Amino acid sequence: MKNKRVNFMTYTKLDADSIISYILSIDTLHHFFGTDTLEASEIGDGNLNYVYIVRAADHPEKALILKQAVPYLRIAGEGYPLSRDRMSYEIRSLKLYNALIPQHVPDVLYADEAMSVIVLEYLSKHIIMREGMMDAIIYPNFAAHMGQFLAQTLFKTSSLFLEGTAKRQMMAQFNNNTELCGLTETFVFTAPYMEHETNEIDPLIEAEALALREDTAFKIAMLELKYKFMNQSDALLHGDLHTGSIMINKDETYVIDSEFAFFGPFGFDVGALIGNLAMSWVSHFERSKDSHYQGWILESIVELYETFETYFLSLWSAAEQSALIEPGFIDHKGLKQYQQNFMQNILQESIGFAGAKISRRQLGIAGVADIRGIEEPKSRARAEKMALSIGIHLVKNYRTMHLITDLTDYLRNLK
Amino acid sequence: MKNKRVNFMTYTKLDADSIISYILSIDTLHHFFGTDTLEASEIGDGNLNYVYIVRAADHPEKALILKQAVPYLRIAGEGYPLSRDRMSYEIRSLKLYNALIPQHVPDVLYADEAMSVIVLEYLSKHIIMREGMMDAIIYPNFAAHMGQFLAQTLFKTSSLFLEGTAKRQMMAQFNNNTELCGLTETFVFTAPYMEHETNEIDPLIEAEALALREDTAFKIAMLELKYKFMNQSDALLHGDLHTGSIMINKDETYVIDSEFAFFGPFGFDVGALIGNLAMSWVSHFERSKDSHYQGWILESIVELYETFETYFLSLWSAAEQSALIEPGFIDHKGLKQYQQNFMQNILQESIGFAGAKISRRQLGIAGVADIRGIEEPKSRARAEKMALSIGIHLVKNYRTMHLITDLTDYLRNLK
Repeated sequence: MKNKRVNFMTYTKLDADSIISYILSIDTLHHFFGTDTLEASEIGDGNLNYVYIVRAADHPEKALILKQAVPYLRIAGEGYPLSRDRMSYEIRSLKLYNALIPQHVPDVLYADEAMSVIVLEYLSKHIIMREGMMDAIIYPNFAAHMGQFLAQTLFKTSSLFLEGTAKRQMMAQFNNNTELCGLTETFVFTAPYMEHETNEIDPLIEAEALALREDTAFKIAMLELKYKFMNQSDALLHGDLHTGSIMINKDETYVIDSEFAFFGPFGFDVGALIGNLAMSWVSHFERSKDSHYQGWILESIVELYETFETYFLSLWSAAEQSALIEPGFIDHKGLKQYQQNFMQNILQESIGFAGAKISRRQLGIAGVADIRGIEEPKSRARAEKMALSIGIHLVKNYRTMHLITDLTDYLRNLK
Repeated sequence: MKNKRVNFMTYTKLDADSIISYILSIDTLHHFFGTDTLEASEIGDGNLNYVYIVRAADHPEKALILKQAVPYLRIAGEGYPLSRDRMSYEIRSLKLYNALIPQHVPDVLYADEAMSVIVLEYLSKHIIMREGMMDAIIYPNFAAHMGQFLAQTLFKTSSLFLEGTAKRQMMAQFNNNTELCGLTETFVFTAPYMEHETNEIDPLIEAEALALREDTAFKIAMLELKYKFMNQSDALLHGDLHTGSIMINKDETYVIDSEFAFFGPFGFDVGALIGNLAMSWVSHFERSKDSHYQGWILESIVELYETFETYFLSLWSAAEQSALIEPGFIDHKGLKQYQQNFMQNILQESIGFAGAKISRRQLGIAGVADIRGIEEPKSRARAEKMALSIGIHLVKNYRTMHLITDLTDYLRNLK
């Protein structure tokens, strides 16, 4: 019988068994495997979702990833409800990214918003970048790839490129991702800097954590960044673009896990990535003590930002008309000046958001393994203190930085 | 027979006859009049829509306003299509305003998005404020009323008051008002400062209009304001809050015509109103030459802004929790400092938007009657030149103003 279709019209949580029937019920996926004998096993690293690898039993190299959202925060259990709508935002953003920059996101083989399921290309030759960086692996193409990814995804979803209607229709697809935006508002911009039950503060840096709660200038700067995050709809953001959201090897770079996607400030994704690179740089004073590797990280920050900026400006030059700038409105010299102001503001906001991301990772829930994974307590505390002081400095002083090298010079002079 | 219901389920353009059947088909409206004998006549002042007054034949004091949108720009004719969806935004914003500040908007007696119809309280004792100001009428309560209107409508639709989900749900109601936002983007921020077929430039100020097209600093500042208009979703704006959108008498003040409603920057409505007051002030050097009246206008600008600011801050003090500021995040001193920065930014952006509104009214389509209605050509040109130079100054220098009196002092020193 050809028709193996099972009723998956309404949401059902899949398991390793039912996943096979589900896959076989979808013609394109059935065709991909070319067999009815499949094996599914869970990959354990999802904080939010269930992630399975599905293979043809006879040809295990024929493999796909199936990711399903459940209506709660998986890491915390069913007592922490979290709408499975997040999968819809991941599906929509990944489809958009595939249209804009297919070489840096996995192919989407199938997507099903009703079932909160996405089926993706299996990236068998790549690892999570954070893991690679903890092992001091150099990725020579990373900065160029991610600079282009950021420029392409941010520019082409902004008013610098889109007509008004197109942008608003695109925004409407992400406008209701309130729940995940709310997580960022709480866990990046708020809770880590006040008394809050979710904080995870190393007793060895408690004095610094308590002092920060009294730092009015820091709080004001953090509110300004949070306000921008909430109200400045520049472009479609990934929303959680740290080194754990990148699958990488020496040749290729893929962005995954875009369920936080929404329209926010240009600097937020750029800053998230720079902040996570800076935390890896800090961690290697304790981990590898490999100054050559640390030098590569700082060079990568500069190359990442400069590629982003150059590529962003080249897209802008190629765009003949946008909702913002009609042809003939401003002459070449004026446009150059406007672009210079515009890029300066993106740089500064990126550095501010980098500081927010670094600070929260030292005090709040969900630290980064680069630093929290350092086993020796005093060594870990040294890294935490250094990272926290960097985060605070960037949040309070981002408006004083004018070049990306102002940031890396500041870091280089710390030791 | 009780049932007079006519089929108005699908959109039909009403006329003075069918409007009666329509009104009688709606129980609440039928009940309001208490008779089947009604008279409808068109009020001719709608640029976009058809506006009728409907009266009970025997009791003409029993009257209502019915406003219907047509799928084109009425003033320009059927050749200029404009979605009648605009009525949905007017309905939604007016309902919201009625919930927030009912004393300053007309009651909505009936609304029908499918028919693009709204039925409103008839304001029989009020005139359009622009008409009153051309006759040099003083409105002693205007500044206090509108200061409160602006504070209440802007604060309570912002992240300073609403939780994230509530704000995003509210935004979703207005997110697609792209067409009318596009009119503002073109006719306020773009076309008047370049060669454009829609411009209406008085030959007597052509030199100034052409010079402005070469003013790079002005163009850059205008792009910055336009970018904010397009991407900064602070609060629900009226979107077209000039003195022609206010019905007024000595005692009462009502805001009408909110079809441009959408989420944009705090300063846009405030600036629109201040800019229109400033244009009236300019016009009276030629019209009444009544320096006492002009003094009242400048005092009203200050009172309007100061009422807005005081009331906005008092609402902020009363709000215990918002998406932006969780209780305990920042101490009293820090909050005061943050609020001071925040209000300073609103003031400056308001002055910048006032400048944009003033400039465009001198060069673009749809000038203001206060100035374009001055009959003697040289006199009119003097007013246009003065207004234009004010607009340009405000657009280029709004970041240098720190108090609302910096604006009125600047005006006072011009003559």
